[in-house]
Amino acid sequence: MNVERTTLKEFCDMVADKTPTPGGGAVGAIVAALAAALNQMVANLTIGKKKYADFEEVMEEVLENMNYSREKLQQLAYDDIKAFNKVMEAIKIPKDDPTRSEKLQKALKEAADIPFELAREARNVLKFSQVTSKHGNKNAISDAYSSAELAYAAFRIGMYNVLINLSSIKDEEFVRKYKEELEELKNEVEGIYKSIRELVKENGFEI
Amino acid sequence: MNVERTTLKEFCDMVADKTPTPGGGAVGAIVAALAAALNQMVANLTIGKKKYADFEEVMEEVLENMNYSREKLQQLAYDDIKAFNKVMEAIKIPKDDPTRSEKLQKALKEAADIPFELAREARNVLKFSQVTSKHGNKNAISDAYSSAELAYAAFRIGMYNVLINLSSIKDEEFVRKYKEELEELKNEVEGIYKSIRELVKENGFEI
Repeated sequence: MNVERTTLKEFCDMVADKTPTPGGGAVGAIVAALAAALNQMVANLTIGKKKYADFEEVMEEVLENMNYSREKLQQLAYDDIKAFNKVMEAIKIPKDDPTRSEKLQKALKEAADIPFELAREARNVLKFSQVTSKHGNKNAISDAYSSAELAYAAFRIGMYNVLINLSSIKDEEFVRKYKEELEELKNEVEGIYKSIRELVKENGFEI
Repeated sequence: MNVERTTLKEFCDMVADKTPTPGGGAVGAIVAALAAALNQMVANLTIGKKKYADFEEVMEEVLENMNYSREKLQQLAYDDIKAFNKVMEAIKIPKDDPTRSEKLQKALKEAADIPFELAREARNVLKFSQVTSKHGNKNAISDAYSSAELAYAAFRIGMYNVLINLSSIKDEEFVRKYKEELEELKNEVEGIYKSIRELVKENGFEI
C-alpha cells in the first residue's frame, strides 16, 4: 500500500482480501486523513470571504495543522501494516525457541504504539473539526460536521486496536500505564465530540 | 474523481482544495465502502476455520452483500459530486430568469436523494458489521468494531447532507416526508449502533 500510488478501489480490495493487513488501523489512519482534508476544505471555503474575515487567522491555522496531521496519518497507515506484520513474524517463531516470547512481546508493544498515535492524531483532527464547525463557512457546515464524525470514528478505531494488542501483553505495568493514558485521552475526545454534537443539534442537523 | 484511477493522496488533495466537491457526501460514500471492505476481510478470515464452521454460510452472505454495497457506494460517490455541481449550476442562473427557481428546486431535491441513499446503504453495512462483530473470527474482532464505527459515521454524514439540502427546499410536503423517513432510518441505525457498542463493552474494548 502506497498512498501516492494505491487507488481508492485497490485500497478497498486490499482491505477486503483474506490477509489481516491493511486492517482497521490502516483504514482508521486514512479516514482520519480524510477528516483532516475536510477541515482544510472548510477553511479554504472560509478564507477570503468578507463575512468570515474575523476567522481568517484561525482558518490559516486549520490549514497548517491539518497538513501536518495528514502527513503523520499517512505515515501511520504504513507503520500499522509494518507493526502488524512484525507480530505475525514473531508468532511464526517455533514455540521451542527460547527467544520467541521476548520477541513477540516486543512486537506487540510496538504494535500497540501505532494505534495509540492514531488515537492521539484523531483527537488533534477532532479539535480542528470543532473549530471549523463553530467558525467555518455556513455553506460548508455539513462538511465540518462530517469531519468530526470521521475523526471520532478514527479515534475509536485507534482505541480498539490499542486494546486488542494490550490483551496479549504480559507486562502488567506497561498495560496499566497505557490503559490509564488511553482513558484520559478518551475522556477528552468524548468531551469534544459531545460538544460538537450539541452544536449540530442547535443548528438543526439532528432529526 | 474516479475510484479506479484516483489515488488515496489525490483524493485527500481533491477533498482539501478550495472547491466544494468532492465534499462530505463523496467522502462518506468512500468511508462506507471501506467499512464494507472491513466486513469482507473479517468474513474472509472466518471462512474455512473449523472453530467458526457454524457461521460459514452467514459469512458468505457478508461477502456477497458487501460486494453489492461497495459497488453502490462507489457509484454514490460520483453521483454526489454530479448532484452538487447541478445545484451550483442552477444557483448561477441569473436571478431574473423565470425558470431559475424551478430548476434550483429540482436540483436540490435530486441532491437530497443521493445522501439519503448513502444513509440507507450505510445502515445496510452497519447491519453486517453487527454480524461480523458477533460471529466473526475473534482475532479480527477490532476490525469488525472498526467497520461499525465507520458505517455509523457514514450514516450521520448522509443525514447531515440530506438536512443541508432540505433546508433550501420550499416544497413543505417533500421536506416533511423526507424528514419522517430519515427519522425512522435514524432510530433503526441508533438501535443497531447502540447494541454493537454494548457488545464492544462486554468484550472489554471500552476503556
